[in-house]
Amino acid sequence: MKRIKAIVAYDGSAYSGFQIQKNSRTIQEMIEKALTRMHKGETTKIVSSGRTDAGVHAKGQVFHFDSPIHMSGESWVRALNGLLPTNIVIQHVEVVSSDFHARYDVVGKTYKYFLHQGELPNPFKHHYSTYFPYQLDIELMRKGAQHFVGTYDFTSFCSAKTEKDNKVRTITAVEVDQTDEGFVFTFTGNGFLYNMVRIMVGTLLNVGSKRLAAEKIPQLIAAKDRKHANKTAPAQGLYLWEVYYDN
Amino acid sequence: MKRIKAIVAYDGSAYSGFQIQKNSRTIQEMIEKALTRMHKGETTKIVSSGRTDAGVHAKGQVFHFDSPIHMSGESWVRALNGLLPTNIVIQHVEVVSSDFHARYDVVGKTYKYFLHQGELPNPFKHHYSTYFPYQLDIELMRKGAQHFVGTYDFTSFCSAKTEKDNKVRTITAVEVDQTDEGFVFTFTGNGFLYNMVRIMVGTLLNVGSKRLAAEKIPQLIAAKDRKHANKTAPAQGLYLWEVYYDN
Repeated sequence: MKRIKAIVAYDGSAYSGFQIQKNSRTIQEMIEKALTRMHKGETTKIVSSGRTDAGVHAKGQVFHFDSPIHMSGESWVRALNGLLPTNIVIQHVEVVSSDFHARYDVVGKTYKYFLHQGELPNPFKHHYSTYFPYQLDIELMRKGAQHFVGTYDFTSFCSAKTEKDNKVRTITAVEVDQTDEGFVFTFTGNGFLYNMVRIMVGTLLNVGSKRLAAEKIPQLIAAKDRKHANKTAPAQGLYLWEVYYDN
Repeated sequence: MKRIKAIVAYDGSAYSGFQIQKNSRTIQEMIEKALTRMHKGETTKIVSSGRTDAGVHAKGQVFHFDSPIHMSGESWVRALNGLLPTNIVIQHVEVVSSDFHARYDVVGKTYKYFLHQGELPNPFKHHYSTYFPYQLDIELMRKGAQHFVGTYDFTSFCSAKTEKDNKVRTITAVEVDQTDEGFVFTFTGNGFLYNMVRIMVGTLLNVGSKRLAAEKIPQLIAAKDRKHANKTAPAQGLYLWEVYYDN
């Protein structure tokens, strides 16, 4: 058996999220079905770097699995993409050391959140970018963003449904960039809690539209109470962009 | 009663085309439902510039309807968009002369067809642009495209299912442009037959990939037989871009 690491990009709009659930179509299920076909019906399970929610996309989700098949990375990419729908595209496959673990070995992740503005929403972006018609001050959002950088207990910035006990995470960078269509927010950190990026974006939108002072963010973090934070931005602008491992 | 002209953009990927059909969700149905709600349950029918197929998009589809409601164009846009799903967005509304007809008065249309290339298909474009992995020679495609410009009987370049008897159409311009991701084909003419743009694109892809000589196109047109033409390119790259009327 070889341990195989794979990177996958997917359009989450047609799926109920990454992780297998009963009675709903998930990305994990589609990948495991393709792998099981490649293994002549032998069930092949995958372990991902973490789940993504319904409607959330990925440019660089990572998963691992074990296989007795000997094949080059390129051949794996071709074979899997031939069995997968066109909204799930394997980007890269490689054989890794047998102790590599796609979830436990994660040292960091980058998420991006896309927003489009303009007089009218863009119907071709409705699954891929959130429409926000109100004016946003980029300098205020950048100021707000810096308050998230550091090591904090992010209880105020995760869903009340979060199952993890330890809510301390380190955010290493938050960038706010203007694009032709609107804005893109880039968050990098050692880990993110349930809905954490979407709540941070919701907060920065309040800062950018002058409904919340950037300087209030440290107080919101210190409160350690979800009630004190802001609205969760919609799923459709969110992309798991990259997952980092040591070497 | 006022005659109202509207321009609408839509993402066709979630619909079975523009025109109302039994047991399937269409764009016309969604717009008529919204209009009927605005008219307090009074059924309001629309007439479009023409149908679009399942999966085909529009940036500037035009339709008309009659209404006793007095309202500014901007208020119509806001009211209708408030009742429509976010993949159908009204762009513009104006009151027009009572003899305006969205289908009969068309003097021309522009369609665009988007293609993306690269080592792997882009999962975020699978509804919006056709993936074509093979090398394409832009100069050959431009040469081929010029053979479509003029007034011809396009029997060889429409679906055998075309209901119209007169298959003579005038194509005024065909442009082939390279983009960061691939190519865009722009067709302008006084009218297009069923599947005509998609068959012309299929033909140009054969020319660009050197499976068909550009100089053969006049013979294909002269044959007036669908059997002599080339594959129909998939629906998902096609957009009804603009519809033209006199003044």
